[in-house]
Amino acid sequence: MAAGHPAQAEVRREIRRALREVLGGAKGGQSPLILAAVSGGADSLALAAGLAAEAAALGVRAGAVVVDHGLQTGSAGTADTAAAQCRELGLDPVRIERVQVDPIGEGVEAAARAARHDVLDRVAKESGSPFVLLGHTRDDQAEQVLLGLARGSGARSLAGMPARRGRLLRPLLGVSRATTHAACAAWGLTPFADPMNEDPAFARVRARRALADLEADLGPGLTEALSRSADLLRVDADHLDGLARAALAPFASVAELPLADLAALPTAVRTRVLRRLLLGRGARPGDLSAAHVAAVDRLVTGRRARGPLHLPGIRVSRVGKGADARLSIEAVAPV
Amino acid sequence: MAAGHPAQAEVRREIRRALREVLGGAKGGQSPLILAAVSGGADSLALAAGLAAEAAALGVRAGAVVVDHGLQTGSAGTADTAAAQCRELGLDPVRIERVQVDPIGEGVEAAARAARHDVLDRVAKESGSPFVLLGHTRDDQAEQVLLGLARGSGARSLAGMPARRGRLLRPLLGVSRATTHAACAAWGLTPFADPMNEDPAFARVRARRALADLEADLGPGLTEALSRSADLLRVDADHLDGLARAALAPFASVAELPLADLAALPTAVRTRVLRRLLLGRGARPGDLSAAHVAAVDRLVTGRRARGPLHLPGIRVSRVGKGADARLSIEAVAPV
Repeated sequence: MAAGHPAQAEVRREIRRALREVLGGAKGGQSPLILAAVSGGADSLALAAGLAAEAAALGVRAGAVVVDHGLQTGSAGTADTAAAQCRELGLDPVRIERVQVDPIGEGVEAAARAARHDVLDRVAKESGSPFVLLGHTRDDQAEQVLLGLARGSGARSLAGMPARRGRLLRPLLGVSRATTHAACAAWGLTPFADPMNEDPAFARVRARRALADLEADLGPGLTEALSRSADLLRVDADHLDGLARAALAPFASVAELPLADLAALPTAVRTRVLRRLLLGRGARPGDLSAAHVAAVDRLVTGRRARGPLHLPGIRVSRVGKGADARLSIEAVAPV
Repeated sequence: MAAGHPAQAEVRREIRRALREVLGGAKGGQSPLILAAVSGGADSLALAAGLAAEAAALGVRAGAVVVDHGLQTGSAGTADTAAAQCRELGLDPVRIERVQVDPIGEGVEAAARAARHDVLDRVAKESGSPFVLLGHTRDDQAEQVLLGLARGSGARSLAGMPARRGRLLRPLLGVSRATTHAACAAWGLTPFADPMNEDPAFARVRARRALADLEADLGPGLTEALSRSADLLRVDADHLDGLARAALAPFASVAELPLADLAALPTAVRTRVLRRLLLGRGARPGDLSAAHVAAVDRLVTGRRARGPLHLPGIRVSRVGKGADARLSIEAVAPV
């Protein structure tokens, strides 16, 4: 396959670069199976086509997993079409996985993502595949940052999606959505236009509109700037989380936490240690906000009365006095 | 003065809280002079009125500085009106300071800010005032974060304005612009409506529109979320900057920097150390972007050829080989 259209070349180059980095120079033995996660939309179709085009040069086999979330009428047909497109591109094996999405808790988008990641992980293990590629683009990344901003919960929620987590790789995080659409057109692929992408009931769709408005207000280049911010904040968050993990060790096995030792930590580390302690002792992750952690931090640093603080799933209070003051975190049964 | 309207009460409470925190419990001797920086707009007029109302209870004298930037026809008259309003509120002394704004470099907004901060600092010193209050609100803070996002240059540029830097205090960072307007109305004060606040040539005005659009897309509460994000990121940035200052010490006096020692630093710290080294050796602050620092970082970590890299004001290259490899940063004369 010739290099073709610049959009095809860009998609192929990013896939090649990402896979070279994780596969290293290891040669010989059976060539590994790399899977593309495909929905049938432009991003993942371009991903599948790029993987198919690069597989031989990389010495890998290319396959695909099409996840049918069953959330829309006709989703089985959409999955069949996407799978057929993948087979036509030469991907093998191509599997369709149907998942049950439980829309309780953080909502249907989070539930669909969790179900999808579970099934991708299972399929990768079953088929002995070291890596699964996801088609998220720079636009997805920028939208993710905007959603994090709307939550207002700090560096980690602004840090966007990582290029790699475990077996999951996102080689197209530097590629625009316009490029994946152009690449599909150049490959002669007709992507599925998901009506959910137009439904403002979904946070992702609202973020897309917000991004378009922001570009209009603040000028072009905003998507790149948000994506660059995410990269920088991810590096910061990783480092501070590492410092928090190290600082957490002395507290992990203690029933009541010595306040003086906690208060001696730098604020950026202490709030992260507190978050981990609260989650480890019964706080519910989806319900524990930055404001809750800040309230516990005021309890620790003495800028608030002794408590107790009633937070989702836990009760936090100060016990003892002076140098012997300690923080007590108790799980409480749901009402 | 009675507590009055809730907006007045909120402005007064925030000023009281901020000043109590910095003044501590120190009593006796001459009561310190606290200055409000006043433009005549709603935010700074509410600030002046709140300071006047709280001065006696806090045991301080309240004065004002009106800065006339001379950027608009009639700016002298605006300054005179603002000064008269301050005197009527009982502030004393009230000084008008005329500054020259040099619109070269980062543009007229940055130049006006630099000139304003210089004159406030000078007046505070001359009049023996320990603190100058600025009227920035939560909306200003959120707009600042959006402008930082549009630059895409990391935690520090997203961290917004601090509640305190040196003599400058911003007691209204948690108060909305709607509240300062309501407070002015309740105090019977007519604020100056700056036509520059409607001119989209100014980044600040574009940010204001962007914020309104974002609230419409992502829901109310976005201003608070942005301001909360800024608070969290400022704590992170302060800690990481502290780590970078400590890590910088061994390199400060070395002509060529040992690459192995730099590469051994964690990325979040290393990029900050590099930024400081580049600035310390001739890079121009306004021109040194996160992308420049990232390019130098690739040179350090060996993910890029030896250079040299030509950056604004400096040339950076690798010298030596293997364990003896060093980074050379040389100032270059402007072309």
